[in-house]
Amino acid sequence: MVFTIEEIARLLNGTVEGDKQIKVDRIAKIEEGFPGSISFLSNPKYENYLYTTEASAVIVNDNFEPKKPVKAALIRVNDAYTAFTTLLEQYQRMSGMLIQGIEEPSFMGDGSKHGEGVYRGAFSYIGKKVSIGKHVKIYPQVYIGDNVSIGDHCVLFPGVKIYKNTVIGNHCTLHAGVVVGSDGFGFAPQPDGSYKKIPQLGNVILENHVEIGANTVVDCATMGSTIIREGVKLDNLIQIAHNVEIGKNTVMAGQSGISGSSKIGENCIIAGQVGIAGHLHIPNKTTILAQSGLTKSLEEEGLQLFGSPAFERKPYIRSYTVFRRLPELLERIEELEEKVLNLKPTESNP
Amino acid sequence: MVFTIEEIARLLNGTVEGDKQIKVDRIAKIEEGFPGSISFLSNPKYENYLYTTEASAVIVNDNFEPKKPVKAALIRVNDAYTAFTTLLEQYQRMSGMLIQGIEEPSFMGDGSKHGEGVYRGAFSYIGKKVSIGKHVKIYPQVYIGDNVSIGDHCVLFPGVKIYKNTVIGNHCTLHAGVVVGSDGFGFAPQPDGSYKKIPQLGNVILENHVEIGANTVVDCATMGSTIIREGVKLDNLIQIAHNVEIGKNTVMAGQSGISGSSKIGENCIIAGQVGIAGHLHIPNKTTILAQSGLTKSLEEEGLQLFGSPAFERKPYIRSYTVFRRLPELLERIEELEEKVLNLKPTESNP
Amino acid sequence: MVFTIEEIARLLNGTVEGDKQIKVDRIAKIEEGFPGSISFLSNPKYENYLYTTEASAVIVNDNFEPKKPVKAALIRVNDAYTAFTTLLEQYQRMSGMLIQGIEEPSFMGDGSKHGEGVYRGAFSYIGKKVSIGKHVKIYPQVYIGDNVSIGDHCVLFPGVKIYKNTVIGNHCTLHAGVVVGSDGFGFAPQPDGSYKKIPQLGNVILENHVEIGANTVVDCATMGSTIIREGVKLDNLIQIAHNVEIGKNTVMAGQSGISGSSKIGENCIIAGQVGIAGHLHIPNKTTILAQSGLTKSLEEEGLQLFGSPAFERKPYIRSYTVFRRLPELLERIEELEEKVLNLKPTESNP
Repeated sequence: MVFTIEEIARLLNGTVEGDKQIKVDRIAKIEEGFPGSISFLSNPKYENYLYTTEASAVIVNDNFEPKKPVKAALIRVNDAYTAFTTLLEQYQRMSGMLIQGIEEPSFMGDGSKHGEGVYRGAFSYIGKKVSIGKHVKIYPQVYIGDNVSIGDHCVLFPGVKIYKNTVIGNHCTLHAGVVVGSDGFGFAPQPDGSYKKIPQLGNVILENHVEIGANTVVDCATMGSTIIREGVKLDNLIQIAHNVEIGKNTVMAGQSGISGSSKIGENCIIAGQVGIAGHLHIPNKTTILAQSGLTKSLEEEGLQLFGSPAFERKPYIRSYTVFRRLPELLERIEELEEKVLNLKPTESNP
Repeated sequence: MVFTIEEIARLLNGTVEGDKQIKVDRIAKIEEGFPGSISFLSNPKYENYLYTTEASAVIVNDNFEPKKPVKAALIRVNDAYTAFTTLLEQYQRMSGMLIQGIEEPSFMGDGSKHGEGVYRGAFSYIGKKVSIGKHVKIYPQVYIGDNVSIGDHCVLFPGVKIYKNTVIGNHCTLHAGVVVGSDGFGFAPQPDGSYKKIPQLGNVILENHVEIGANTVVDCATMGSTIIREGVKLDNLIQIAHNVEIGKNTVMAGQSGISGSSKIGENCIIAGQVGIAGHLHIPNKTTILAQSGLTKSLEEEGLQLFGSPAFERKPYIRSYTVFRRLPELLERIEELEEKVLNLKPTESNP
Repeated sequence: MVFTIEEIARLLNGTVEGDKQIKVDRIAKIEEGFPGSISFLSNPKYENYLYTTEASAVIVNDNFEPKKPVKAALIRVNDAYTAFTTLLEQYQRMSGMLIQGIEEPSFMGDGSKHGEGVYRGAFSYIGKKVSIGKHVKIYPQVYIGDNVSIGDHCVLFPGVKIYKNTVIGNHCTLHAGVVVGSDGFGFAPQPDGSYKKIPQLGNVILENHVEIGANTVVDCATMGSTIIREGVKLDNLIQIAHNVEIGKNTVMAGQSGISGSSKIGENCIIAGQVGIAGHLHIPNKTTILAQSGLTKSLEEEGLQLFGSPAFERKPYIRSYTVFRRLPELLERIEELEEKVLNLKPTESNP
């Protein structure tokens, strides 16, 4: 797949500055560019690399003015970053993801069916009464339990495990080792100190355009459904407990976790290693900083939280700044005490 | 599986208030009840839903007195919550978990055997000299290494990986992606800065009634055994390091971790994302709150710990309450300093 | 495999004190020794067990002088701990790890090849154009994507998933459930609040002697490579994001995570549940204590960090010590305020 700069400029709706017939066949970061590769410049911090890069072509913003001579051909576009992303997508579409057909041995139970253009890898397992849409990729060693429904254009990477009754929309991507629909952690304490399992009879619903990172776990509901709304993106090694609901377009970074029955709003940003206690309500557009622990519901939209237990980011940072000076504060209090003690006699003196 | 209210009341040892012949075939939360479903009311906070629910029947406590008219039939029992749990169990027993037999292809090595009523899913792998009891369910893509012993009535969900020499009791449930018996993290630093692996030759013992959540890992011992005692319940994505021992009926929530050689007592409650350092001793009935980090052994039973490094919950909360006011404290100290400075001259004045 | 004490002493370059013909066939901790087992004493804390152990032989340091009579035969060596580790290795080499050959069904795509002495377990999947070296062990249910390259003497435990284009050196060990090469968490926010996936086109490089614990995830780079340098050891359930680079001989304990594009130096020690933010630079020989959260790059080598956000260990501990006394500090401030208030009148009195 070799392209001329001109062909790429046409794809990106851009204009070429330099030799339109130069050919490129690889994509590279500007600081790692080599002859035959195309790169981009968006963040001004990287501008210096433009003057030294070995890349054959660089995508830049329309209004960009070089301060030194540039060896590479330039493709000028409205927004270099977006254009480059479009290019990456095209590249990926052409260079992979085209696999389809059925590898053997694979297993499909009674009453299951799937649409056209599906890939079913070797050692994949599909239970009974499973419904799978069009152009779904089921990689090797994936498990899909009974009565699961999967929409169109989903990708289940190797080793994904889907428990029975799960409902998955269109355009969902689940990375290797993801578990969806495992039992919620529900046990009733008994008088003798042991625990009795509370049956977990609900399921999980993933709406359209959900992406879930490797080895993340989403438990089924005790009753009803654990729901991950449209456009939610979950990173790796995340824990979503039973009966949780995550609102549209919320994103969560790696190793964060949400306890049972908490409801997270839309367009929230939850950073890495965050913990959210059970039965909380988190409004839309909430941001929770890394390693924070949320223990209370919030009333207001758009807050930024920090700390464990978490409160608002700005006061948290102010408190933490003083925390760093605590030994000094203690000394100042001790000095004050001494001074006040010395003052004391004067009080009764006059 | 359709039942009359009367049949259900008999099962639960309860009495019917309303039409005994009403039929139900589904279970629902009271706020989501629909015709043909049965629900329950235990927590008074949900009482209002009783007067509006579409559920055909609701299980309530014997002594409950409705404040408004109720459309649903009532089943009165001693303890509505426990009765409902019983009902869920019956439902689950009847609606699933009945799978047995051997799907092909599956693999079983020389000298391995299993009892009656076993399910071995497609693509499951059983090594050599493995002993498996009665009514064990081994789902697809499970791996069981050589010399493993598994008791009766265990369930190994898809993709569970059991390393060699592991010993598992009766009635254990391991969810998808669980790893038991992987090498402990033991490396001896060398003079050149590299690390030399310390062979991990021990195993893991899971006693009876242990349940382990999805993608949780239990490492084998360096020598001897990592031991999870009877009735222990581990949530998802937990890390149990080599030579750890967890006492009877202790429960751990998601994403918590225990470092090497620590011994946890019985009936402890360890919340989510807790970390416990290595070589510690935690007495019985200890409670550790979410995201806490335990760095020291405890002497006394029944303590509640919080914070990182953790200390007792009440003083921690008191300290944290003041932490939130630290900027104010700093100001008050500064004011004091100013005042005392202004006072000073008076000291030498009189 | 039964050995005389004399044979073992010769292997370890040691001298026997006691009956050289005593036979042992098992290894045990000194406090759990039994007849027929051999143990070791290195840590003086365990010396008392030497006088009561049932082990037939105990390895001790050359210069060790027993304070009481010892029943076991002694093998004196230069360094008892190192000698014992050598013994464990020999034991492991002889008692396992010798498996080779191809179990069926297993899958290998077109253009893939492997060297001599390889084990390919049942239900393992090797894609197209994969290159695998000599004496590699690929356990059951392992997935290896297209164009992956694996060196000699690697071990991929059951269920390991390697995405396409990954490059793995020699002598690497990946434990069950490890995922290497999954997509980095890269999404560009759109004006309508949704997120658009940024294609992840890079790969992962694991250099020689890398060991990765169970269910740990290493994401591929957006472009270029996520790189784990020679001798790095990662524990279980760790998250390594896209474009991270980890320097030679750095070790990370369980459940820690590194965000995108951060570069970690050589010979660092990162304890459990640590979080490292994105785009940071961590110099060589940095130590980060458990549960800490690093939010800023460091300039200096060899620092010890603690807390979240982390700063240097000693000042952190000093601040935390005062944190524990905060309620008392508040009281002292209140007392001071009262005293100063009472002083005030004296100021204007004289």
